[in-house]
Amino acid sequence: MNLTKIDGGVTAAAGFEAAGCEAGIKYQGRTDMAMIYCRVPCAAAGTFTSNVVKAAPVLYDRHIVTDIGKAQAIVINAGIANACTGRAGYEICEKTAEAAAAILSEVHADRAPVSADQVLVCSTGVIGMPIPLDRIVAGTGKLARLTRADGGSEAAAAIMTTDTKKKEESFRFVLSDGTEAHIGGMCKGSGMIHPNMCTMLSFITTDAAIDQSLLQEALREDIKTTYNRVSVDGDTSTNDTCLVLASGLAGNKTITEKDEDYRLFCEALHAVNEGLARKMAADGEGATMLFEAHVIHADTAAHAGILARSVISSNLTKAAMYGHDANWGRILCALGYAGVDFDPEKVDLTLVSAAGTLPIVKDGVAEAYSEEKATLILSEAEVTVICDMKMGDAEGRAWGCDLTYDYVKINGDYRS
Amino acid sequence: MNLTKIDGGVTAAAGFEAAGCEAGIKYQGRTDMAMIYCRVPCAAAGTFTSNVVKAAPVLYDRHIVTDIGKAQAIVINAGIANACTGRAGYEICEKTAEAAAAILSEVHADRAPVSADQVLVCSTGVIGMPIPLDRIVAGTGKLARLTRADGGSEAAAAIMTTDTKKKEESFRFVLSDGTEAHIGGMCKGSGMIHPNMCTMLSFITTDAAIDQSLLQEALREDIKTTYNRVSVDGDTSTNDTCLVLASGLAGNKTITEKDEDYRLFCEALHAVNEGLARKMAADGEGATMLFEAHVIHADTAAHAGILARSVISSNLTKAAMYGHDANWGRILCALGYAGVDFDPEKVDLTLVSAAGTLPIVKDGVAEAYSEEKATLILSEAEVTVICDMKMGDAEGRAWGCDLTYDYVKINGDYRS
Repeated sequence: MNLTKIDGGVTAAAGFEAAGCEAGIKYQGRTDMAMIYCRVPCAAAGTFTSNVVKAAPVLYDRHIVTDIGKAQAIVINAGIANACTGRAGYEICEKTAEAAAAILSEVHADRAPVSADQVLVCSTGVIGMPIPLDRIVAGTGKLARLTRADGGSEAAAAIMTTDTKKKEESFRFVLSDGTEAHIGGMCKGSGMIHPNMCTMLSFITTDAAIDQSLLQEALREDIKTTYNRVSVDGDTSTNDTCLVLASGLAGNKTITEKDEDYRLFCEALHAVNEGLARKMAADGEGATMLFEAHVIHADTAAHAGILARSVISSNLTKAAMYGHDANWGRILCALGYAGVDFDPEKVDLTLVSAAGTLPIVKDGVAEAYSEEKATLILSEAEVTVICDMKMGDAEGRAWGCDLTYDYVKINGDYRS
Repeated sequence: MNLTKIDGGVTAAAGFEAAGCEAGIKYQGRTDMAMIYCRVPCAAAGTFTSNVVKAAPVLYDRHIVTDIGKAQAIVINAGIANACTGRAGYEICEKTAEAAAAILSEVHADRAPVSADQVLVCSTGVIGMPIPLDRIVAGTGKLARLTRADGGSEAAAAIMTTDTKKKEESFRFVLSDGTEAHIGGMCKGSGMIHPNMCTMLSFITTDAAIDQSLLQEALREDIKTTYNRVSVDGDTSTNDTCLVLASGLAGNKTITEKDEDYRLFCEALHAVNEGLARKMAADGEGATMLFEAHVIHADTAAHAGILARSVISSNLTKAAMYGHDANWGRILCALGYAGVDFDPEKVDLTLVSAAGTLPIVKDGVAEAYSEEKATLILSEAEVTVICDMKMGDAEGRAWGCDLTYDYVKINGDYRS
């Protein structure tokens, strides 16, 4: 394995700094804004929500990624999503980017000035509420002075909403010429999580040198089997955004074609994205466990993914997981309505967790298994159901969580 | 209006009898089997689940409706779904039908014998468990002796699972030659409710005389805007079934083409189906309210339906309804990921219930509305959100319910 897990999150790669601060956007007594800054302009790639209702920062960042393709900083706020805010919401993005560019240029007067059209802006939180312009500009100013090469964790904490845990991943990997490169990321996401095109908010940084168009393609492909395989509640957000910045400071020969280095880079990108995706599922609103569906021997990888995602999205299955009940009929049922054809009388189901492995269905009907053992397996923090379709050689995974009283409490009692 | 609401449910139409009994299939101390019987063979139509995993009775009834097109009795059990039970499950259906035909022929020896291939069989309950043959045959025998012309309500009670209320609807209507006809129905459904092709279990009877092929077509069209517009939890069942029996005993000239009488019949069928669909949504597992989405000024009726269904299916919106929170951002978000294009900056949202009418969003952004008034409106037992898309003249409705602690309790704590 060419990948070594390291610390650092979004500041693991060379050239990147980050920080979090209290800006009082909506939350009080906690950090709620973060900034990622790179000392050089980076190749920037991004994917965004497929929701017809797109938040202002999604429209703003899509323009930068598509038309500029470069970025040097990302400003993020939690608490207010800046969605359904009309023209005024878009102007908040513009003014935030202008403030960031001005102050970063002033603070780092020894370097080339930061261009306002190379600052990305992201928001997460309540839909419809306006972001106070004075507070977000003041927060941006503070952050520009605070970014540090070891600030990744601080930034990861500041972007949380109903998340209960920071979510970071980072790896070192070696390119074909022996260059050591780094890639790391952070994300947030707990409710309104059923990404389509991308996850809630996810930020990846790398020092590998890679062409912007290849970076975009690598990202676009990878989200299909990572973030797009996560569901907490079936609701695709208005703000889903995944951004990748590549600084090139590792010093490798720039990746410009789909060669061995591209493959190595994609492998590293996938490791970060899959790690973050799993963490997001495990920290779903109210969740007590990570629930993975692993579909094997499907006819195509796309079908395997659709089947796996249907299982982890089923409310009834998720409620059964919460009850540690091996209600396999609900799993078979969810496979059945996924929209993919298969022979139900061939399907095998097996439960796997740290507590053991238990075949529960063989050829579509129940095995004589022990309910006690099943409950024991389902009581672990991470549970996988293996669905053997016996059709071909393709496989796919998806990640979700259980459906709990706390999910209802979080979303029924409070305007989150 | 040509429709008059009457009592009677599935026994409102001439020729039909029904009964419920305690058969001890799985539940104890309550009725759990029902029978509908008609003194003459009826034209029989049906629609069934689109789930790839189809319960044995679905496969069995589909054969009868498609290949025979006539039926004289329906035997229904609650508690065990007879799904994922393989060949043995199908044999249970055959033996139940044989038993029903034999005993009904014996009890009604003055009439022509009931043919075993004119007995439909339906099941609802836990997936995967086998139905005890002796109990279902004994129950069938009891029911054949118990059916009465006023037994509709008794039957409606016996088919309940986690339902908290019987669901019946019936109407009298007048055909063009002055003939008085009747149509009535009952259904059950509370969890695993996200019908696709049809609802959980729904049974309609009418004395109107109508060709089987027209009856099938009328049903197939009508479920699109009734049962297929209901969602409790997004899970499409393995057992969804809707059956219609038409005895012809009203004495009208048989409806054989799409004339005025066909239109009148379709109107009556729709009234029964919509009434039952709404009752099913209102009695969703754990529900405290009926939540209706009414999409107006959409470009097409199909799009209106897709948008409406997306809103009532959103877990986040459903949780907000439970909290009586006018979290309109979640409603706009759910419209946005429905898969239909529209301009989010044109959408108006209005809340309506017995407590009043309140515009909350105008052209995609919040109105200055009173949160107190919104909470008052959302505290009623039936709430509608009107979504004005300002695109065209089409409209559509869908029905759901709130997402509550009790939904999680019902589905997490017990194998239901």
